[in-house]
Amino acid sequence: MLFTLSGRKQVAMHNDTEAVLTRRGLLALVGSVAGSAAMYQAMTSLGFAAESRYRGPIKLEGDAKGASVLILGAGLAGMTAALELRKAGYRVQVLEFNNRPGGRNWTIRGGDKFTELGGAEQTCGFEEGLYLNPGPWRIPFHHRAVLDYCRRLGVTLEPFIQLNHNAFLHSSAAFNGRPQRIREIKSDFQGQVAELLAKATQQSKLDEAVSTEDKEILLQALRSWGALDKNYAYSASLVSANFRGYARDPGGGLAARPVAGKPANLSDILESRLWRYLQNFALYQFQTTMFQPVGGMDMIGKAFAREVGDLIQYDAKVTRIQQHDGGVAVSYVNSRTPGMTQVAKADWCVCTIPLSILSQIPIDVGSRMKAAIDAVPYASSVKIGLQFKRRFWEEDEAIYGGITYTDLPIRQISYPSSGFNRNGRGVLLGAYVFDVANSFEFTSMAPADRIARAVELGSSIHPQYRTEFENGIAVAWHRMPFTLGCAGSWTDEAREDHYDDLCQIDGHFVLAGEHASYIPAWQEGAILSALDAITRLHERVVKM
Amino acid sequence: MLFTLSGRKQVAMHNDTEAVLTRRGLLALVGSVAGSAAMYQAMTSLGFAAESRYRGPIKLEGDAKGASVLILGAGLAGMTAALELRKAGYRVQVLEFNNRPGGRNWTIRGGDKFTELGGAEQTCGFEEGLYLNPGPWRIPFHHRAVLDYCRRLGVTLEPFIQLNHNAFLHSSAAFNGRPQRIREIKSDFQGQVAELLAKATQQSKLDEAVSTEDKEILLQALRSWGALDKNYAYSASLVSANFRGYARDPGGGLAARPVAGKPANLSDILESRLWRYLQNFALYQFQTTMFQPVGGMDMIGKAFAREVGDLIQYDAKVTRIQQHDGGVAVSYVNSRTPGMTQVAKADWCVCTIPLSILSQIPIDVGSRMKAAIDAVPYASSVKIGLQFKRRFWEEDEAIYGGITYTDLPIRQISYPSSGFNRNGRGVLLGAYVFDVANSFEFTSMAPADRIARAVELGSSIHPQYRTEFENGIAVAWHRMPFTLGCAGSWTDEAREDHYDDLCQIDGHFVLAGEHASYIPAWQEGAILSALDAITRLHERVVKM
Repeated sequence: MLFTLSGRKQVAMHNDTEAVLTRRGLLALVGSVAGSAAMYQAMTSLGFAAESRYRGPIKLEGDAKGASVLILGAGLAGMTAALELRKAGYRVQVLEFNNRPGGRNWTIRGGDKFTELGGAEQTCGFEEGLYLNPGPWRIPFHHRAVLDYCRRLGVTLEPFIQLNHNAFLHSSAAFNGRPQRIREIKSDFQGQVAELLAKATQQSKLDEAVSTEDKEILLQALRSWGALDKNYAYSASLVSANFRGYARDPGGGLAARPVAGKPANLSDILESRLWRYLQNFALYQFQTTMFQPVGGMDMIGKAFAREVGDLIQYDAKVTRIQQHDGGVAVSYVNSRTPGMTQVAKADWCVCTIPLSILSQIPIDVGSRMKAAIDAVPYASSVKIGLQFKRRFWEEDEAIYGGITYTDLPIRQISYPSSGFNRNGRGVLLGAYVFDVANSFEFTSMAPADRIARAVELGSSIHPQYRTEFENGIAVAWHRMPFTLGCAGSWTDEAREDHYDDLCQIDGHFVLAGEHASYIPAWQEGAILSALDAITRLHERVVKM
Repeated sequence: MLFTLSGRKQVAMHNDTEAVLTRRGLLALVGSVAGSAAMYQAMTSLGFAAESRYRGPIKLEGDAKGASVLILGAGLAGMTAALELRKAGYRVQVLEFNNRPGGRNWTIRGGDKFTELGGAEQTCGFEEGLYLNPGPWRIPFHHRAVLDYCRRLGVTLEPFIQLNHNAFLHSSAAFNGRPQRIREIKSDFQGQVAELLAKATQQSKLDEAVSTEDKEILLQALRSWGALDKNYAYSASLVSANFRGYARDPGGGLAARPVAGKPANLSDILESRLWRYLQNFALYQFQTTMFQPVGGMDMIGKAFAREVGDLIQYDAKVTRIQQHDGGVAVSYVNSRTPGMTQVAKADWCVCTIPLSILSQIPIDVGSRMKAAIDAVPYASSVKIGLQFKRRFWEEDEAIYGGITYTDLPIRQISYPSSGFNRNGRGVLLGAYVFDVANSFEFTSMAPADRIARAVELGSSIHPQYRTEFENGIAVAWHRMPFTLGCAGSWTDEAREDHYDDLCQIDGHFVLAGEHASYIPAWQEGAILSALDAITRLHERVVKM
């Protein structure tokens, strides 16, 4: 190598252009003599690339010695483990509770049926081509493992629209209950914050905090960023309209001049509490560019199943997990032959069963792991998909994808990120409820009543609901028999006390899944935890 | 009708919920008795819908009396006029300078050739399926006319990613020339502005501007919106990392804890001037959700041409426009039979020729329209498409679509908004230059040198350019014979003096195109101006 890379933080950053050119010159040289992979390594070390946890396809080198692995659960964690362990030479089998692969990676389409705890069965009435992703529904750009498996397994992606400036923020108690466009609240809040700070700067109230040299640039920056007029005011003018939108848009031909609207007062925005929603769109986990698989999230689960489906035994409910010196023995019941317990044995077990379920299964693990398994409560959430006769949100209101936030119990309305600008029916997410009180209120109702309630509430944001609604489907996660919740809900304290114990290999048994990650409720957490678990498992096997 | 709608602004907005419910009740009633179109009218009047200029498909009612219309130019304005006028009963013919429809609605693919002023010819070497849109390349959600024609003509759309938080902001003089992630600058600037304002608020420096009641909410809002810690500081913590991204992302299994990075100092951001770019993403014209046609922008031009292609005579260069009492006579030369002037006659003429060209053609119009035609300078711009062996911006840097801004003469690098996460080649926009100095610098070079220069400059942001570049194409708009510029560049003063004169009907002659709109350089302006022009033309015909 031409130079030593001793870690990202230790590379000197000089304050002159020459050093930069030299650094870049080195990169070019590395690229030309050693190829793109080496250059990327160098780039990462020099701090160009993001510090993702995922470093590309896992390499399990060394002899698997014919060892066998039993994987519990054919969600993304389980199928990742199955795919990679078989490739590394293990004998693999998978037990899955449901009659399909994917677990929470799940898409509901017309004709699909499911039964929740309590016995209520629903059959989806959506038109062909329309769907609801009741579980994961979006993939951030930094979820490198999910994206890499999508690429390798041929799953086609399309953008998921998280922030749509033309969707609404809605408070039933503010602005006469009238939904506000996100672009208006976003610009009006930012503009008036900029105005307040600009005025304070001009009045020398920030002289302790801002140097004289920076003061003038700060004023320029606030004017640009806040859409302030030449008097540093956020006013009803075309300057603010260029950001918040117009009362009347510019047009063509005669009488085409645009008309500016009147911004909302800062005081009204503050009291409305609508500012609470503005941060959602800026969160790292929700930033552009996000994705969804074309045709439904379960395209990922199905792609995995094309690789490892032959290893999966469906309809298998695990009833007991035992360890002995040589390995594991897992008892299970096949729901097609109830009453008959079967036992699967292997040298190792990778268990991806949600802790909400696993904590109820007799299991031979040490007290620390058992305490960890019992320490994580599960979040409940409710998602309701609604089919309408036409895509009125696009036709009438120019809302293409994105999310409306409301303080009503439905919490969110999310418009589909596919099939844009077409005639015909559409399905939107009419409720995404995750707070405990509202989740349980919805779940206490029969599915048809949940749907009716979502339609009733949503019609105060979209009056078209009343005439355009056709049918719906409601998934209450803590009533789903295979998870009893939507995801592990770690507290900081529980993490401190139990997380490492949960992830350690206990004898011949190791856990994986979103609950065994720092990215709870995300598919990336499930896959990364599986990769970490099987890497450690493999190291033990090789060293044996 | 149940109630009178006398204009949006006159509808009373009461401060109680009952009035809102009543308003909504009315809407539901309208919807149920009169259908969705009536409900939408009511919604618009009540202020629910956006005040776009476009009110759905144009209705040219009344007898066209067999009148003929000659349309000059088969861009979107010309083809819109042709489509709607024929439908209304006019006899229509279209003369087009190029050998293809669309005008600036244009997509360049592998094998395409074009010649610019000066004689330089380029042949595009892109792989099949890859393309560059040298003209318009994105469609805002509020461009209702473009979207409606796309829907009616069957043009499939996909999201265009304008803001990608993981793309770069780059100043060659700041941060050692190292590109900064947009998410970092955006969060760090916003956070530190919030911190400054929070501190000033706490120190009672804003007491004149903010009421005591609002003060506490403002602090909460700033903390939420600015990602401040519990001391109201924007610090190196997981609170800020949740927005700006991490030094090390959270992972799965053991050793998965995320690591926060260190924010950039406000002073460094201010002096870098990178804040200048932050506003771009918030502009109404660039807000989510934006679109592009699947497969290239010229899918729109081609869709129009499927409707009106039979009316278009290609390769026709207009040399003279005459008016007489009964109508218009337009002289033109077919480039396939040069030297032979032909004359097309009609009762009316809708001229969409760019003013940069039209101002050089002898024309019989009044002095006011002639002065207007001569008053509008045209912007120059250069777009350079570059093909690379692999989509390294995605693979190496997790940049999927969006735009990197730089102070280098290339100004922008825009990553493709299609073909995400796939193996194989990709084309990005390696330069989008619109300032006069840099445009002319690029244009003074031969096309191959422009491309080499874009690769050289871009490699200081993406070192991979050096090993991955394959070929490129460079379009310098003021060297394109059919426009001599990219779009009309109105000053406020010229608009005041000349715009209405430009749009008036002069005898039997009327202008249309983006230059005859308040949305210059956008396809929406072209279409709306055509709709306005033909509406007025038709009114005259009907009244005759």
